[in-house]
Parts: sequence; structure tokens; C-alpha cells
Amino acid sequence: MTAAGGFQAAGIHCGIKSGGQLDLALVEAGRPVPAAAVFTRNRVQAAPVRYSKRVLAESGGAVRGVILSSGNANAATGPAGDQAAARMAAAAGDGPFLVCSTGLIGIPLPVELIEKATPELRSRLAPSAEAGLEAARAIMTTDTRPKEALARAGGATVGGMAKGAGMMEPDMATMLAVLATDAAVDAPALQQVLVQAVDRTFNRICIDACTSTNDTVILLASGQAGPVADSEFEAAVTTVCGDLAEQIVRDGEGATRLARIRVTGAANESEAVMAAKSVARSDLVRCALYGGEPYWGRVMAALGASHVPLDPERVRIAYGDVVVCEGGAPAAHDPEAARAVAQAPELTIRVDLDMGTAEAEVVTCDLSHGYVDENMGAS
Amino acid sequence: MTAAGGFQAAGIHCGIKSGGQLDLALVEAGRPVPAAAVFTRNRVQAAPVRYSKRVLAESGGAVRGVILSSGNANAATGPAGDQAAARMAAAAGDGPFLVCSTGLIGIPLPVELIEKATPELRSRLAPSAEAGLEAARAIMTTDTRPKEALARAGGATVGGMAKGAGMMEPDMATMLAVLATDAAVDAPALQQVLVQAVDRTFNRICIDACTSTNDTVILLASGQAGPVADSEFEAAVTTVCGDLAEQIVRDGEGATRLARIRVTGAANESEAVMAAKSVARSDLVRCALYGGEPYWGRVMAALGASHVPLDPERVRIAYGDVVVCEGGAPAAHDPEAARAVAQAPELTIRVDLDMGTAEAEVVTCDLSHGYVDENMGAS
Repeated sequence: MTAAGGFQAAGIHCGIKSGGQLDLALVEAGRPVPAAAVFTRNRVQAAPVRYSKRVLAESGGAVRGVILSSGNANAATGPAGDQAAARMAAAAGDGPFLVCSTGLIGIPLPVELIEKATPELRSRLAPSAEAGLEAARAIMTTDTRPKEALARAGGATVGGMAKGAGMMEPDMATMLAVLATDAAVDAPALQQVLVQAVDRTFNRICIDACTSTNDTVILLASGQAGPVADSEFEAAVTTVCGDLAEQIVRDGEGATRLARIRVTGAANESEAVMAAKSVARSDLVRCALYGGEPYWGRVMAALGASHVPLDPERVRIAYGDVVVCEGGAPAAHDPEAARAVAQAPELTIRVDLDMGTAEAEVVTCDLSHGYVDENMGAS
Repeated sequence: MTAAGGFQAAGIHCGIKSGGQLDLALVEAGRPVPAAAVFTRNRVQAAPVRYSKRVLAESGGAVRGVILSSGNANAATGPAGDQAAARMAAAAGDGPFLVCSTGLIGIPLPVELIEKATPELRSRLAPSAEAGLEAARAIMTTDTRPKEALARAGGATVGGMAKGAGMMEPDMATMLAVLATDAAVDAPALQQVLVQAVDRTFNRICIDACTSTNDTVILLASGQAGPVADSEFEAAVTTVCGDLAEQIVRDGEGATRLARIRVTGAANESEAVMAAKSVARSDLVRCALYGGEPYWGRVMAALGASHVPLDPERVRIAYGDVVVCEGGAPAAHDPEAARAVAQAPELTIRVDLDMGTAEAEVVTCDLSHGYVDENMGAS
């Protein structure tokens, strides 16, 4: 989080979580810097999302940093939630600050705990890797590990952190992520790069097809490293987003296996994405992934249930390199070879629609007993 | 299945299922009678669906009966699958016969087993309740019990059977059902009544939001009881469909709890249905149902993720009669009372959108360890 020049971070325990875990993080640039953000498309937007949108609009895309809390999402909390988000931003210091919260929905945010803790939080701010890791830990909920990523763009750096775990829907992947770069990029250009990168990374993962009320991805640019080539910068932002997105799927609630759903031969990229998402969000496909079963019939059914025009008799499906379905019908293959692919901790299910030349990949994980355990209670 | 005059049924074991369970059923009227059917909207349509559509079109909606097999869906089986469906219909006797299959996708149908068994199947045909029950048993897959229903319309009867269990998506509920009536109704009128009834019953249940390749609902009319009033007939067909639909949810794979998602105050009925389905298909809502947790925040998030325009600050949510959310924010309530509702074997989650006067109810079940168990393997 602090890899790019000009940023400091910190994470502490303020008391939102009952077990003493870190639950409050701060990332800041010391002065307002160009900022971009992408938010959830859920119509129920949490108070921090509404607040941050307003700050970005009113500041013309110049913010000093982000304050983030975990354990309580400050969502569906009414006008009191809006006040709490504003107080949280004010507590972060001289702003403007963006605000993110993640955790339980519908419970009033104990903002006084945050206000009490921010002096210590500010005193711990540091540009070190340790401080960055503390911040990444402080935004975790059911995540089992912190998520950080890094890429270079010419002389500049793009660093980032994210949290994921559950409530993951491919129509704006569901999580919090903050990226910081020292490249000199203005706010409108930052926004354009971020939207593109999110669309190709966070929006192409799926855990449970549930869209959260709090999804936020933020990109801050300190400018310390000076300008870099557009293409290099875009590539670096996309790399960091993609790295974080994949870490989120690997650490999905209850996940034991990661599957790349790779669709080729689509009429256009958007249809390739739709087809891949329809497979990735199928509970039945994801249960079979858990069981390590190369049950391609469910992949076929999920393809048909998508809104992508397709000719079933042209569809080819392979588990890894083992073609199991050709022309929409069973293909002669070694069942043990297909099973070996399906039982690996990571696999690619390849679908060729034979309708064109476009392709896309969506990454998902299995639906396991652990996912049910994790979500039976209100946690 | 045989409650209406003019129909006979039978069910036997022909060998598709390895354990000796019934797997082949026949329902017939002895001569071609008016018929209507509604099929899956999945773009991958199983061979029996394609075959039955053609028969209905070519016969002008007059068929003698339906032959149904379980254990193998004859889906994604290519041209050989089409031939198998046609051979299955021919084996049923002098037709035309509709064909339904349910079970595994992507495995060639052993149609020779069916051909070998149909003489005995035909010899067992009877108009008795026992024969009807045998037929209902012979279409079960992961169902734990047969599903039958009955309603009267004036002097006529509407009887029916169904199978459900998994791969249940509210965009044309996923199952096989056959209804038979002795009311005298012509094929176009039958079709109109069936489409309306399915839309309000089978299309308002949700188990796992997966759409099958084989969904079929068939309605046959022998005419033996003569004409009945349109409104009485529609009500009876809707009652039978609704009864079977609810039995399907109760027997959903791994289901331990049934929830009615009742949306009121919608701008129109279609938005009420969309909002209710968005809640009913949420894995997170359904895991909380399993845990018996009145976690309304997930209901709120699922509402927001639907495409229904809504103002979160007008939303009221209640578990049974316990209002837990008012104006989009927590409402003071007795948490134990809410929990008691959530832990009952059957509950209603009421959502008032406060946008109009339309309403709708969608019925769903919980997402349990049992569902994962059931679907880890290829079964």
C-alpha cells in the first residue's frame, strides 16, 4: 500500500471487532492528490459510498487519503449512517478523505470508537511495508489473509491492497481496494484507467453472485515519480487490480479450488464475458468444482441459461486440455484425465462457442461446506 | 395423475437407474386429446424438449400421452439424443406421444432399455391412484418423495404430478410436471391457461437459480367431464400447479426450511416478482435461512442488487410480523421474536417497497450443507 512514493499507511484495533483484531486503517498522501474511484452498482448504497461519491464530486477528484473500517459496513443505517460516515472522515484529519466500511449490514456504526482511535492511528502512519501490511490487515473481514499487490510503470510504482471474501458478484466485483501510485496522472485520466482496469479484473471474478452495498476501488496518485507512458501506467494498474482480484477469489469464503472459465469463439467480448459469468455463478457448477467432478453437463446448462445467443451443437468444452464435449455432445476422452484436471487445486474450464473470435476469462471458486458454515450466521 | 377421467398411468424400472428404482413412466388418454405445454427457456434444450415441441406443432396440439424417464436427461447428447427421444416416443405406442427425460446431462440415453421395457409398462397402465403414484415415483431423481396434486373445477377434475429437487431457477421453474383434466377444453385455450398458471406458480419458486435444459410442464384434457367455466378451470389448474410448485420447494435439494418472500408496495407486479426473486436467489440470504438468522441486511443488499428501481429509505422489512427494518434503517424490535420467526421450519419475509400497490410472493428454501453434499458429485 505504501510502495509508491508519497503515501503513508497505518492500521489499528479501535473496537468495532470484538476479538481485538485490527479494524481501522488509514492511507494518506499528506496533501490532496488526484483520485479516482469505482463504486458498487447496488441500488442500496452504504453511507460511506454515498459520502465518498460526494467528496469526489465536490473536491474535483482531489483527496488526501482514505479511512477504512471493518466489522461493520455502515449500510442500511439511515441518516445516522450518513452522519457516522462524515464523522469518520472528519476524524481522519484535514481532508478531504474518502471513507470505506465493510462488515455487517444494518447495524449502527459505533463511530465514537473510531473518533477515539484516530489520534493513535495518525501517530502510527508510516511509509513502511509493515505499516502497509497493517492497513491491509485492518480491512479484513472473513478474509483469511491480507491482500497486497505491486507493479512498476516506468519509473513509477503502483501499489494496492484489497479485501474480499463473500458477497461477490461479477457485476462490479465486491470488495474494497485501494491503490496508490506515484505516477503523475490527473484525476480524469486516473478515472479512465481505473474504470478500464476494474472492468477487466475485479468485474471478472465471481464468488457467490451477491453484490455488496459497499464495493469500492480507489486509486490515488501522488505524482512524486513524475509522468509515465499511458500504456505502461494502464498495464501496471491492470496488473495490480488483476493480482488483487485473483487473491480475492483464492481467499473466497470456503474456497478450496480456483477455476478459470475461459470462453473463446464468442461473437464479441461482452458475450464472452456473459457466457463465462453464467458458468462462474452457477451453484451447481461450483458444487461440482468442490467435489472435483468434471461434470461438463452443468457447464452446458449454465451456458444455455445465459442470455448469449449460442448454437449448442457448436459448443466445445474442455477441462484443461481434455476435450469432454464436442459439437454439444459427449466427446470420447479419458475420464481419469478429465478427473485429474477437475481435482487439481486450480483448473481452467475452456469453452469454445464457435461463433466468432472474441474471448474472455472469469475466475471463480468452488461452493463448499465452508461457504455455508461461514454464512449460516450473521458474520 | 389419474384422478381426471380418461387417463391411465404406470411406472416401472427399466434399468436407467442402477439401484432398481422406478425410472420410466407413462401417462395416456387412449386417443389423441388436446394438449398444452410450457418448456424451459434455456438455450440448450434437451432432445426430449425439442422433440415434444415438434410433436405439439405438427399435431396441432393433440397428443395421446407422455412417456417420461428419469436418471438420464438426454441433454447435450447431439443427433443421437434426438434419435433416442423419437425412439422413446415410438416405443410408448401409437402416438403422438410427448417425451420428457430428467437426470444427468451429457450422457447418451440407453434407449434400448426403454424399448425393452415398454410392453410391460403398457401392460401395467391403469386408471388407479396406485398407478398414478407409481408414475410420480418413476420421474423422481434427487426428490425424496413423489409429488401429486388435485383440484376440482365444477364437475371436472385437474390432477397432476411433478418432480423437482435441483437446478431450480425462477425464470421458468425447473422440473417436469404433467397435469391431466377431464374438462373439455381445446388446445389453444389449454395453452393460455397453462402459461398463466405456470407464470404464477412454477415461475415463482427458486431453489438454486440454475435453469435446467429439460423443464417441461404438460397439461392434457380428455374432455370426459364436459365443459366447465373458464374461471373455475383456470383456478383449478393454478391450484394444482401451485401445490406441486410448493412441494418442489419443500423437497429442494438439502432444504431444511421454506421461506416465502412476500413483496408489497411495488410499482407493478413484474417489479414485485423481480424484487422477490432477487432475495430468493441470494446465496447469502439462503445460507442465513439455513442458520435461522434474521439477517435482514442481506435481504436489503439483495433488493438493491435487483434491477427494480427502489428508494432504500422507504423500504420496510419484517420477519413474520416482526418489523426489523423501517425506512431502510434498523427498527427497534425484540431480537428474540425475530429469531424465533427465522428458526421456524416455514417463514414469511415481508418486504414493503412503498412505491405502489402491487405485490407478489416467491417461495424459496435454504442453502444447506445437504445441498452441497447432493451436488458435489455428478448425480
